[in-house]
Amino acid sequence: MKSKQVIWLPLAFLGLLTACQSDTSNLKNQNVALQLQQKALASDLGYQIVESLTVEVGPRMAGTEKDIQAVNWAVTKLESLGFDKVYKEAVEVPVWVRGDASAYVTAPFTQPLVITALGGSVATPEKGVTAEIVRFDTLDALKAASTQEVEGKIVFIDHKTERHIDGKGYGITVRGRSKGAVTAAEKGAVAIVIRSIGTDSDRMAHTGMMRYKEGVPRIPAAAMSNPDADLINGMLKRTDSVTLQLYLSPESRGTATSYNVIAEVTGSSKPEEIVLIGAHLDSWDEGTGAIDDGAGVGIVTAAAKLIQELPQKPARTVRVVLYAAEEIGLVGGKAYARDHQQELAKHYIAAESDFGAGRIYRLDVRVNDSAFADIQSLTGVMAENGVMPGNNEANGGPDVSMLPDYGVPVATLRQDGRDYFDYHHTPNDTLDKIDPAALAQNVAAYAQFAWLMAQSEVELRPIPAKQDK
Amino acid sequence: MKSKQVIWLPLAFLGLLTACQSDTSNLKNQNVALQLQQKALASDLGYQIVESLTVEVGPRMAGTEKDIQAVNWAVTKLESLGFDKVYKEAVEVPVWVRGDASAYVTAPFTQPLVITALGGSVATPEKGVTAEIVRFDTLDALKAASTQEVEGKIVFIDHKTERHIDGKGYGITVRGRSKGAVTAAEKGAVAIVIRSIGTDSDRMAHTGMMRYKEGVPRIPAAAMSNPDADLINGMLKRTDSVTLQLYLSPESRGTATSYNVIAEVTGSSKPEEIVLIGAHLDSWDEGTGAIDDGAGVGIVTAAAKLIQELPQKPARTVRVVLYAAEEIGLVGGKAYARDHQQELAKHYIAAESDFGAGRIYRLDVRVNDSAFADIQSLTGVMAENGVMPGNNEANGGPDVSMLPDYGVPVATLRQDGRDYFDYHHTPNDTLDKIDPAALAQNVAAYAQFAWLMAQSEVELRPIPAKQDK
Repeated sequence: MKSKQVIWLPLAFLGLLTACQSDTSNLKNQNVALQLQQKALASDLGYQIVESLTVEVGPRMAGTEKDIQAVNWAVTKLESLGFDKVYKEAVEVPVWVRGDASAYVTAPFTQPLVITALGGSVATPEKGVTAEIVRFDTLDALKAASTQEVEGKIVFIDHKTERHIDGKGYGITVRGRSKGAVTAAEKGAVAIVIRSIGTDSDRMAHTGMMRYKEGVPRIPAAAMSNPDADLINGMLKRTDSVTLQLYLSPESRGTATSYNVIAEVTGSSKPEEIVLIGAHLDSWDEGTGAIDDGAGVGIVTAAAKLIQELPQKPARTVRVVLYAAEEIGLVGGKAYARDHQQELAKHYIAAESDFGAGRIYRLDVRVNDSAFADIQSLTGVMAENGVMPGNNEANGGPDVSMLPDYGVPVATLRQDGRDYFDYHHTPNDTLDKIDPAALAQNVAAYAQFAWLMAQSEVELRPIPAKQDK
Repeated sequence: MKSKQVIWLPLAFLGLLTACQSDTSNLKNQNVALQLQQKALASDLGYQIVESLTVEVGPRMAGTEKDIQAVNWAVTKLESLGFDKVYKEAVEVPVWVRGDASAYVTAPFTQPLVITALGGSVATPEKGVTAEIVRFDTLDALKAASTQEVEGKIVFIDHKTERHIDGKGYGITVRGRSKGAVTAAEKGAVAIVIRSIGTDSDRMAHTGMMRYKEGVPRIPAAAMSNPDADLINGMLKRTDSVTLQLYLSPESRGTATSYNVIAEVTGSSKPEEIVLIGAHLDSWDEGTGAIDDGAGVGIVTAAAKLIQELPQKPARTVRVVLYAAEEIGLVGGKAYARDHQQELAKHYIAAESDFGAGRIYRLDVRVNDSAFADIQSLTGVMAENGVMPGNNEANGGPDVSMLPDYGVPVATLRQDGRDYFDYHHTPNDTLDKIDPAALAQNVAAYAQFAWLMAQSEVELRPIPAKQDK
């Protein structure tokens, strides 16, 4: 299979070249892309960067002391790699700390549960909340319920996340996490505990942000592990009346200053035009932030470093942005869009790596429809590295997802995310979950993408509108 | 593969029958064994029993209130299944409660670790213990170290457990867990934290018993998860000086009364002779005790129930023993051996299921060498269910491992334990880790074994001495 690819893809690629873009500069760009792939696959720099971040900093919740350690780590690391420019931009971020979390079934059988607070949740009273639970298959089922069914109870949304290569199961169930507390509170619930938004069967709860709504009571919100949700179902098979005692002590502590940390390989002929490759620097607090998003930090940094090392500078500037406070609401991404608004017209294209370290199998973009074929042709060389042409419906990744609203073209380098939601937002987000070879393949893909985009002479604008946000 | 087995094994088995044991009663016994297999594979009783134990009781540390709940559950369950006799025998058990556990690396980089106290450990002082760690590859390396290297430090034994079908990796590394604290304390260590004795890479620490020694200081003992041990190694690559702050608050609370719970199918012609199939009822406290040893409880109970339901009673009595307090030192097993000493001469053979719910692939025994071939012949029918003839060196399982010292023959029905030590002694020991089909295969094997042994006319004694204990 592998050797078959090696035989036929270069031919296909050369054919494309001959047909569409036979000028020598383009051939040279494609050759550089192949060299970047070779160098990336022979290097462990991406892995070394994640290793460094997870060992020397570890968990780094936005606005905490560890977050500032991460920012300092990033500045030092980027400077040590010799980028043309390294700088940081202040971002005001909300500070939320987890505190303790515990839950017990008190009837019909006493059992402790493994839970964690959802990000942004308020605390329970000091003595906890004790109430019967009311179970719903989905957020929609909760929405359809009467106030009478829910009032005074702890809502339990029991929606299992399905495993898919593109992680689409998450998109379906995460609505219960983000919006469940508001819907539950509107119907008089005293708290909400959801089945973890995760594809694993480990006894670890998955955290992640939830939201409140002005004018709706703020009720405590937590997730239980998948085996605990199974346990509750075991009890519900025996009786309708399952009582839970829930204790959470998270705290919102106002705001603090964090930073988007930025490095650049300055463009030679069009230095003011930007190819942005990003990742986020913050992480949740229970793991060491290896797959989310240490991997992305390693991938885009190592990719840009390969371009920095080239004998010839790229035409456009390649800008690495390590975003602040993604987890708690894309705060760094929004700040970047706001602070760089004047410059966004000069952003040629943007992409964020924030889906772990699984191999990239496809390149989706969002560019002018008439430019789509040219971009597919231009990036055809990436098939050598397993990255096949995709669609024209990319959103670009969380922290760049708002840039299309400003007319900026984006790309999504789609990773194999089959195991991503096994570990996502849990203590299990640790370095051992990263396959160094897969990470290097990501570095190769980002290096090729950034290089080819920096050299591209295709006009990508105006971009098509998003169908769904 | 499957259909091939179905074709040739019955022929081989019938061949054996013709050659060795052509009498009609034996043929009838073998036919009953085949019927037992069919019934077991068509039934989910074993799984229903584990489900009931894990949902209705859950964690059940010896000597705690939950342990007594488990005993009451067991008596009720066994009575409801209609066994000829159900009774319990008091066992005095030590009581140890886990309390809280936390650990932080304080230098060179601040990071929280995921740890758990080892069973039997003393607490740290209330403010914890803070000291540099000293790392050893193995217990033997610690033994070879000088006092100077260890004094005043926290010992870190970093021995990885290898994955094997028979779990032999555990036997190698568990010595560090059980004996490490004594060796470390003899050299002046202030505490010990080991790499978890587990084959997983989940951020969960594996608990399990450790021992102290009269006259040697009792130092706090804990395990960290495998990813945490990797993290410490990442730091040790950068500096020799890694400082840990460790806090544990376990408590030994004297003794309490627990019970071995026993059920019998009374033998027809030799009721005073016993075929013992056992499992242990207690569990560690962090999971729900599904694979350790709810699975065993389900397997041996469901197997005996199949024999209870037969139209013809077995010649010997089949006795199910659900042992108390296995985890904290085989307390129930030792009590049984002591309390039943007069009766042990009448124990035909004994086996315990305490290795999860993986499929049984082999039957090892410990019987008189001259009886070995006959027993292999007699149990040849078990190959139909995937259980192949094994060796004559069985130890029988933890709670029956002392019975050979009293001359009692034992058997080990070897299970596929490749994933057992991923979950063993962690919060991950939950019902979802059990494959109902594999559990039913276990029930079939135990039912066949117990039946064939109850009918056997082979003299099994005197048994060969153990080579290693």
